[in-house]
Amino acid sequence: MTSANLFPGVKVILVETSHPGNIGAAARAMKNMGLTELVLVNPLDFPNMKAVFRAASAGDVVRGAQVVETVEEAIADCQLVIGTSARERRIPWPLLSPRECGEKVVTAFEGEQKVGLLFGRESRGLKNEELQQCQFHVNIPTGEAYSSLNLAMAVQVICYEVLQAKHAGNNDSGRSDQEWDLPFADSAAVEYFYDHLEATLIQVGFHDPENPRQLMTRLRRLFNRVRIDRMEVNILRGFLTAINRLGKPGEPHEPQEKG
Amino acid sequence: MTSANLFPGVKVILVETSHPGNIGAAARAMKNMGLTELVLVNPLDFPNMKAVFRAASAGDVVRGAQVVETVEEAIADCQLVIGTSARERRIPWPLLSPRECGEKVVTAFEGEQKVGLLFGRESRGLKNEELQQCQFHVNIPTGEAYSSLNLAMAVQVICYEVLQAKHAGNNDSGRSDQEWDLPFADSAAVEYFYDHLEATLIQVGFHDPENPRQLMTRLRRLFNRVRIDRMEVNILRGFLTAINRLGKPGEPHEPQEKG
Repeated sequence: MTSANLFPGVKVILVETSHPGNIGAAARAMKNMGLTELVLVNPLDFPNMKAVFRAASAGDVVRGAQVVETVEEAIADCQLVIGTSARERRIPWPLLSPRECGEKVVTAFEGEQKVGLLFGRESRGLKNEELQQCQFHVNIPTGEAYSSLNLAMAVQVICYEVLQAKHAGNNDSGRSDQEWDLPFADSAAVEYFYDHLEATLIQVGFHDPENPRQLMTRLRRLFNRVRIDRMEVNILRGFLTAINRLGKPGEPHEPQEKG
Repeated sequence: MTSANLFPGVKVILVETSHPGNIGAAARAMKNMGLTELVLVNPLDFPNMKAVFRAASAGDVVRGAQVVETVEEAIADCQLVIGTSARERRIPWPLLSPRECGEKVVTAFEGEQKVGLLFGRESRGLKNEELQQCQFHVNIPTGEAYSSLNLAMAVQVICYEVLQAKHAGNNDSGRSDQEWDLPFADSAAVEYFYDHLEATLIQVGFHDPENPRQLMTRLRRLFNRVRIDRMEVNILRGFLTAINRLGKPGEPHEPQEKG
């Protein structure tokens, strides 16, 4: 028997989908292209037979979908997260074409990384804070007169490019992903780092959460561009911990640990 | 006003479509990619409000669709006809990938040829005699486990490749470097940052220059991967300066600057 899943560890993640028909159509689009790992973040109307009906012969993908409450849960084990986005954002993020996205996914997959492909709500797409959890954004170019693709169509185009990249053997070869000496950090570890970084920025008086001025957005964009590896996360958190021991400006230092 | 039709003379022709929802979804997929000329050959259930509903903002494409009786009528004025086909046919025909199909359509369009893109029935595709009216066939590669794409999804993939081919011909951009909102930092600024970072790591007791353990090497590798922009360098150096004010472990803090 032919396995339907050509990309184990590559997840399609649909965030707060309104229409169960779109879930089914997305499942079919996925399975047509050899992807079967579907994750639904807080779907509005699921399970629903409309999803199974629209999935046609991909009912197994719908029934096997993992349902979670938050994007954080969905991407926690992913080393590469790519989110679909309309082109214009106030702060540009590293942006891929669908073709580049396909190549990047296949390269990561061949490097045995877990990958999350994030698709937003039918009406409003992904929120800024969700987009900021991605290393890359991908935008599907359209004509100017009508730029809003149906959700399942967007899934189709992206999954199509993933399978094309696999067939092409295009694995984005000038890039260093596969040659890296250490595993990349997963999203959960990177989120802990951001929390720790923000708390430390507040501690030293550099960041005022009441007047954030996009500071954390810019820092997320900075570190998400890198794809931090595990040792780097440990180094950065060790540095933050050393700063934490110094306490707030004007306060006495915490006692040093004896070594 | 932006014209919705980027490809005058390029027609999408749906043959004996059963489900009006598919007609609407195909119309939306077309308009998203800048195609608006829809021809319906002997549709089974049309007009139907389901088509308009599924078209969303492409209702004009549905309402403007030309309805004809036969494939011959639909393609009569076309100089290039390409038909979608499953891979295996008894008589091999010149076969294009979707990408090649997009390129061929754009080349013909730029040569002011009329083009027909032929899509078959949901259940059985195009008949052999219809396929034999085409100069080329196009096959959308799929995973082996499930090869039957939804009709509108096939329209989406093909129209996507048509628009990609047009964009690729116009320029070969698409890379995100040029779209960055801020100039990248120059090497001198990045070197000052590394000096400042190293001094701060020493200050907080995290880095011992007598026993460096490749710490700076790893941090350089980390930040060099990013291509830091100017604002990011300023943010990072501002953070370091705020840490510097806290002084060394066990020492009293420097007095705060009055603001």
